Amino acid sequence: MDQRLSLVTLGVRDLERSLTFYRGLGWEPDRIVEGTVFFQAGAIVVALWDRELLAEDSVAVDSGGWGGITLAHNVSTPAEVDSILDSIEDAGGQVRRRGAPTEWGGYSGVFTDPDGHAWEIAHNPFWRVTEEGATLLD
Amino acid sequence: MDQRLSLVTLGVRDLERSLTFYRGLGWEPDRIVEGTVFFQAGAIVVALWDRELLAEDSVAVDSGGWGGITLAHNVSTPAEVDSILDSIEDAGGQVRRRGAPTEWGGYSGVFTDPDGHAWEIAHNPFWRVTEEGATLLD
Repeated sequence: MDQRLSLVTLGVRDLERSLTFYRGLGWEPDRIVEGTVFFQAGAIVVALWDRELLAEDSVAVDSGGWGGITLAHNVSTPAEVDSILDSIEDAGGQVRRRGAPTEWGGYSGVFTDPDGHAWEIAHNPFWRVTEEGATLLD
Repeated sequence: MDQRLSLVTLGVRDLERSLTFYRGLGWEPDRIVEGTVFFQAGAIVVALWDRELLAEDSVAVDSGGWGGITLAHNVSTPAEVDSILDSIEDAGGQVRRRGAPTEWGGYSGVFTDPDGHAWEIAHNPFWRVTEEGATLLD
């Protein structure tokens, strides 16, 4: 199995609400097919799909809450972290942790989308975000 | 907020067990720092970290189960789907859905890792997996 990921699907309870939220952050769907929203997010795809259908398709029992996965979006400066977090509540999400220096030498904060999916917005000075949008450990 | 994702962190209960599992699938960590395993997975990073610490860092209440996010790894043929699924149980995961044609015209199956994180292995003839490992909607 190659060391790569193709798709992250976020189960949502109200597709229109989620679509409005991600649009509010500046994301625009590349395709909407039969109730599934697909964003080309750099080299991978992020999808929004009905949470019950996703649970069934994944042969998973839905806990109803957070399930041990957190997403992150890295940016090049602490100011960009704050700028994104400042836009979250107007868009319909919740800031859970304001931007602040981290123990590991970076700067980050956390928001949740309307379904409670957690996103860390981070500046990691030891990683590199390329012009093409890749995040590299080097 | 740019339309891209940098990092997916999987909360795990036993880091060694998870590392052994992902190594068994052919993944090799690029860095292990203070109990966190980082894989450069194409243009993004996949990390394994203690689930309790991840919940705390994410300001999340841990449901203990699946929380509405499923990952997918796309390949170029149905035979590759079956080949990956055939390797899962020896590596320490569980096949939840065997490879089979899907309603949307592809072919997929699902496994869970030792912590129950769900991965769909899929062949989607309408998408493109590039030689560099990007998954594109076009």
